[in-house]
Amino acid sequence: MTTTLRVAIIGTGFMGRMHAHAWRTAPRFFELDPSPEVVVLAGSDASRAASAATEFGIPSSSDDWRAVIARDDIDVIDICTPGHTHTEIALAALAAGKHVLCEKPLANSAEDADRMAAAAEGAAADGTVAMCGFSYRRTPALSLARRLIEDGRIGRIRHVRAQYLQDWLSDEDAPYTWRLDRELAGSGALGDIGAHSIDTAQWLAGSLITGVSATTRTFVETRPRMDERVGLGGRGDTAAPRERVTVDDAAAFTAAFADGALGVFEATRMASGHRNANRIEINGDRGSIAFDFSFMNELQFHDALAPSGEQGFRRIDATEPEHPYAGAWWPPGHGLGYEHLFTHQVVDFVRAIAGGGDAHPSFAEAAQVQHVLEAIERSAADESRFTAVEGAGS
Amino acid sequence: MTTTLRVAIIGTGFMGRMHAHAWRTAPRFFELDPSPEVVVLAGSDASRAASAATEFGIPSSSDDWRAVIARDDIDVIDICTPGHTHTEIALAALAAGKHVLCEKPLANSAEDADRMAAAAEGAAADGTVAMCGFSYRRTPALSLARRLIEDGRIGRIRHVRAQYLQDWLSDEDAPYTWRLDRELAGSGALGDIGAHSIDTAQWLAGSLITGVSATTRTFVETRPRMDERVGLGGRGDTAAPRERVTVDDAAAFTAAFADGALGVFEATRMASGHRNANRIEINGDRGSIAFDFSFMNELQFHDALAPSGEQGFRRIDATEPEHPYAGAWWPPGHGLGYEHLFTHQVVDFVRAIAGGGDAHPSFAEAAQVQHVLEAIERSAADESRFTAVEGAGS
Amino acid sequence: MTTTLRVAIIGTGFMGRMHAHAWRTAPRFFELDPSPEVVVLAGSDASRAASAATEFGIPSSSDDWRAVIARDDIDVIDICTPGHTHTEIALAALAAGKHVLCEKPLANSAEDADRMAAAAEGAAADGTVAMCGFSYRRTPALSLARRLIEDGRIGRIRHVRAQYLQDWLSDEDAPYTWRLDRELAGSGALGDIGAHSIDTAQWLAGSLITGVSATTRTFVETRPRMDERVGLGGRGDTAAPRERVTVDDAAAFTAAFADGALGVFEATRMASGHRNANRIEINGDRGSIAFDFSFMNELQFHDALAPSGEQGFRRIDATEPEHPYAGAWWPPGHGLGYEHLFTHQVVDFVRAIAGGGDAHPSFAEAAQVQHVLEAIERSAADESRFTAVEGAGS
Amino acid sequence: MTTTLRVAIIGTGFMGRMHAHAWRTAPRFFELDPSPEVVVLAGSDASRAASAATEFGIPSSSDDWRAVIARDDIDVIDICTPGHTHTEIALAALAAGKHVLCEKPLANSAEDADRMAAAAEGAAADGTVAMCGFSYRRTPALSLARRLIEDGRIGRIRHVRAQYLQDWLSDEDAPYTWRLDRELAGSGALGDIGAHSIDTAQWLAGSLITGVSATTRTFVETRPRMDERVGLGGRGDTAAPRERVTVDDAAAFTAAFADGALGVFEATRMASGHRNANRIEINGDRGSIAFDFSFMNELQFHDALAPSGEQGFRRIDATEPEHPYAGAWWPPGHGLGYEHLFTHQVVDFVRAIAGGGDAHPSFAEAAQVQHVLEAIERSAADESRFTAVEGAGS
Repeated sequence: MTTTLRVAIIGTGFMGRMHAHAWRTAPRFFELDPSPEVVVLAGSDASRAASAATEFGIPSSSDDWRAVIARDDIDVIDICTPGHTHTEIALAALAAGKHVLCEKPLANSAEDADRMAAAAEGAAADGTVAMCGFSYRRTPALSLARRLIEDGRIGRIRHVRAQYLQDWLSDEDAPYTWRLDRELAGSGALGDIGAHSIDTAQWLAGSLITGVSATTRTFVETRPRMDERVGLGGRGDTAAPRERVTVDDAAAFTAAFADGALGVFEATRMASGHRNANRIEINGDRGSIAFDFSFMNELQFHDALAPSGEQGFRRIDATEPEHPYAGAWWPPGHGLGYEHLFTHQVVDFVRAIAGGGDAHPSFAEAAQVQHVLEAIERSAADESRFTAVEGAGS
Repeated sequence: MTTTLRVAIIGTGFMGRMHAHAWRTAPRFFELDPSPEVVVLAGSDASRAASAATEFGIPSSSDDWRAVIARDDIDVIDICTPGHTHTEIALAALAAGKHVLCEKPLANSAEDADRMAAAAEGAAADGTVAMCGFSYRRTPALSLARRLIEDGRIGRIRHVRAQYLQDWLSDEDAPYTWRLDRELAGSGALGDIGAHSIDTAQWLAGSLITGVSATTRTFVETRPRMDERVGLGGRGDTAAPRERVTVDDAAAFTAAFADGALGVFEATRMASGHRNANRIEINGDRGSIAFDFSFMNELQFHDALAPSGEQGFRRIDATEPEHPYAGAWWPPGHGLGYEHLFTHQVVDFVRAIAGGGDAHPSFAEAAQVQHVLEAIERSAADESRFTAVEGAGS
Repeated sequence: MTTTLRVAIIGTGFMGRMHAHAWRTAPRFFELDPSPEVVVLAGSDASRAASAATEFGIPSSSDDWRAVIARDDIDVIDICTPGHTHTEIALAALAAGKHVLCEKPLANSAEDADRMAAAAEGAAADGTVAMCGFSYRRTPALSLARRLIEDGRIGRIRHVRAQYLQDWLSDEDAPYTWRLDRELAGSGALGDIGAHSIDTAQWLAGSLITGVSATTRTFVETRPRMDERVGLGGRGDTAAPRERVTVDDAAAFTAAFADGALGVFEATRMASGHRNANRIEINGDRGSIAFDFSFMNELQFHDALAPSGEQGFRRIDATEPEHPYAGAWWPPGHGLGYEHLFTHQVVDFVRAIAGGGDAHPSFAEAAQVQHVLEAIERSAADESRFTAVEGAGS
Repeated sequence: MTTTLRVAIIGTGFMGRMHAHAWRTAPRFFELDPSPEVVVLAGSDASRAASAATEFGIPSSSDDWRAVIARDDIDVIDICTPGHTHTEIALAALAAGKHVLCEKPLANSAEDADRMAAAAEGAAADGTVAMCGFSYRRTPALSLARRLIEDGRIGRIRHVRAQYLQDWLSDEDAPYTWRLDRELAGSGALGDIGAHSIDTAQWLAGSLITGVSATTRTFVETRPRMDERVGLGGRGDTAAPRERVTVDDAAAFTAAFADGALGVFEATRMASGHRNANRIEINGDRGSIAFDFSFMNELQFHDALAPSGEQGFRRIDATEPEHPYAGAWWPPGHGLGYEHLFTHQVVDFVRAIAGGGDAHPSFAEAAQVQHVLEAIERSAADESRFTAVEGAGS
């Protein structure tokens, strides 16, 4: 007899819609016990919350997230709000004994993230599961890469090379949004997309970044203010009043990994022609893996132990039963899309709850990413000097 | 006030699961009125139907599709059974005044398909909508290709080049399935995947195939019989008794289009290394488009009117708001997967019902594909001689 | 002590220039004994021959190819003239005891080609070497493909898929040239580029084509006549008088190979956007190889015996010492270009002379290609009916 | 009446062979007056020089480069020796009034490079031409990129992203060579291949690097010593005595350009699977260009001013008459190889001599690259702190 896991989503934006779809889809393709069910959607505005609930297919809504957390019949709080609100909500949810899935970045500061990690560690003793939504870990091709690396197939790692390239701010009249406000967003390309690269890189490499040398740029210092919320890629009215951008447009840094590998990272929203190129390559002494989210169903794998004259990067179509997550879906060669990452995230989260085990990335792991981000900003402010990453949670 | 469109799915296999997901997902991302809801799943075996209904998230099940069709509270019959059953079910559904969505191939013979087309034409007078599920038409990149071609961007068409390459039968011990039985499947690679190429090619080119010269091959004449249902790509036991394969493993044909274009087609399940490479390219006197389902989110477009020295195939990431279907989903560059085709198919079908308009491909269009398949088989049986396609529905 | 091999080139066009470069370059990168030296260039026009000799770096010229063949101090006749002159020159050269390298197509008819093959067979008894210039065989990546196939790495072959796509006639006002005159050129895309695909396919597969089903098209029936010789890709004056095109613009055919494989071929000069896409793919029951001349330094190889979950086409950069021809050139990853095929051709031809051995493709092999071309034209003229290839040289 | 330009090559290794081929080939495909001719090859060892002259097709040899420079009948000194000898030879050649073509890096130190630049500047008054051999500038696709950027097609530049990835030292037992000795080679991957990226980036961007933040790595600190000269990619004997590596295996740095662009660079010999991936991408506010030497005949170009919904990187096959250098060679789509860069370099050098004009990169420009390299090493030694590039030649 399957039990039900009752979920509340906080946040009515793009990510709320995505999570609602993932919770709805996961039990249809994966065996899950308990079986999740989103019962309420909370947002700050009652009217928006109600209409979003209807759109997202959620039976009820609320404009009071604290009241939702207080409900006894809710098992999971799924936080899909902007980053500056994560800490308060997550701490309240953990205090109320709820399992928590929190979108990335975990918080807008390492200090806040550490507090969340500490709370999660305390709650774990009671079997409460807390996880941060670095969804790219759930790409089948990247999970396959992780498996190959764990199995020693690329040997000792020397190079990590990650680029996250977008271009929705390339036009200098692209409109101002909350994502360009340091108070709300924490940082710009760095925290929004660079954080994904950092998490993916450390997870794949199985080694943490210990120090960085960084630089950031804000190429366009003011942008036209829109009266209404404007979507990604919108274009501004040149006559509009302009708002000051207080975050980075781009960040670049080199990184030292604990195991000796050298990382080169770049995150930008100004790489004209790249809508969402999330790329990573890792070179070891026995081979390499390479991935580009523009081709999210494939992994490039080079085996340096293959016979001389027969070597080369091979394109593995990671849609076969042998590949992580893929067997639950369609026949080989029938690719998955972006949203499947979130469905897989739900699956792993629910299974951690069911098994009483750990969910990854844990809040502590996500807090460590926040410490890397902070080291990057300190280095950038200090003439790019090599700057050690402070111990997460310490 | 949104009304509800009540749907019954017939068929408990892979396609039933897919359609259930599409019906569930469509109203969450597209505005649909009426809003569809799958209320019952029918299958030939009561126990299998019941368990599949639970898996697929459908509230009830039945082992009697005739009884389902007879229900007054059902608006749509969605046929996801093997091809040899389509005609009987569709004719019954149309006779009962239901809208019908029927998986491809429409039927296993042109004669059956013509009967279905005639019935659909008769029912259309009462506002009944019938559509065949050639889902690849709903790929955003291919819809974009269609739009570019309609807008004259590649000019007069000379070449159509389509390959549908799979490899799940490449191993001569891959097990026997119903898809290898002519009685049940109609044909092999030809009808299963070649039919997709034919529909896509005619739709994109905006011109019908008038004649073909064809050849087919069955490379592996017997295969090991499994006791249980075996999935795609499974491997046989060499000691098992072997069953005779009565369909083609591969088909190749050249085609004359009504507008003078020359088509070259190939469909095979024996192209080692290609899990599901559905490719099409069209060359006109002003440009070309090229597509490979392995990279389903992108369209290659060559504009021969671009300045000399600046020409080249450009890779359009068809995930932007300007692209067909794409605006309903995620930000640019966050790709879609195979299942989105079916969600889009539901959207177009429901909108046709709502608007009282035509749904494409209509049964008549799908019957014409069946006539092309029949011409191919006649040509292959007649020393590849050029063979005219008989008029569909006539 | 190295001896010298004295070479005469007949033909002052693009191919004459190419061969002159190849003869000059080969001994600088490969150990050759005898070492070749081009001593005279012959053309039909004395003035053009003299200026071309200067351009090509050849010390003398002649307007009388018969006189050149008669010279005792010439060892090799290298025929780079249009196809309709090959037979007469080659027969004379063989009769005079010269080694002969003849550009493809060997002749404009199978009958002529057979006469040349018979003469070459007779001359072979005296150690005279005759070879036809199907240069693509000398691409390192394709030679590597040949080696892999010979070694059984792709197993028994099922599919051969070859496309040779150009677009220099896509514009309907591209000017008339001798290549569009059946009398001079024999055929159009079929003999010019389709012949390359046929030779490459048979050589790689290790199996001959026994029959074909074909169709051809002439999309543009007249073209503007230029007063002067016009290069490829030139554009015509729409007011110019138009000349009738008497060859095909495109040819498509399916082919039966002796070993049971199914071939699908297409050759066209109207594939907008493809300047010179010479592609071939072969699928066997143990793997596949794929090649595109647009990326001439790489071979795609799929090994179906690789572990499940790790399979995929691998991109082999065929520029390593282990790869055919490549070791003579630059460090790995420093690619070769089109002209290297001709340098390699010279190397193989000279070594055949030195070793007293066979040179491939022999005139007999090239004549067999001519028989395939003839079968294609017969099939195209007979409603695409399957047409057997007549035995070459018989 | 064409005059002759008499050339002496100094250096009997891989680069001497390459240059000899380029001098021989250039006048066969490009109109050059004066027409160059290599008359002597000089090396430190008489026997090796003599045998190399024979191999390279050069009529005489010498073991005394000073004597060669002293000859009145020599017009050009072409320096192909290891970097630590460049300064002495070039200064002597310039003092003797010879035109000088010097392989990169110009010198092993910025100080030496500045002396060479000063000497070249002085000699220029007499019409003497000095040029450094950053050959990648002569790739047609990159020259096309330069033209597009100069024409404003990508607008104001924000990002420069360059990677030069090799893997011939990835095996920790790959043998020791002079390239791993700081005294002879100056630096490792940094100066050998990173220097190419720096020159290409600054030339394409039309802007100089003003400061850098850098890190370097030597992953393998000792390597087996071979008794004989060992080629690239050889593998060592693990029992052999090991020699200390005194140069970097890899270097990574961010760079500030004078015009505000942000550069991210990486050069390594340890990127397993990449034989010679020389990549660069530049993003401006109106578009982008991207290049990978593994596909040296193509340029990726994104035009951000193209209509919305039709944008995308287009693959320009830079082999057409409209493209730099390409018209001198083969028909469109028949690609060039690595060696063509050197042939084009000779062409530009000879034309500068003929025209009395400047040759690029001048010694001053090459010396500036050396200053960037020095700034990189200083930054790497100073905790990656941002370090200004000192003015070249000042």
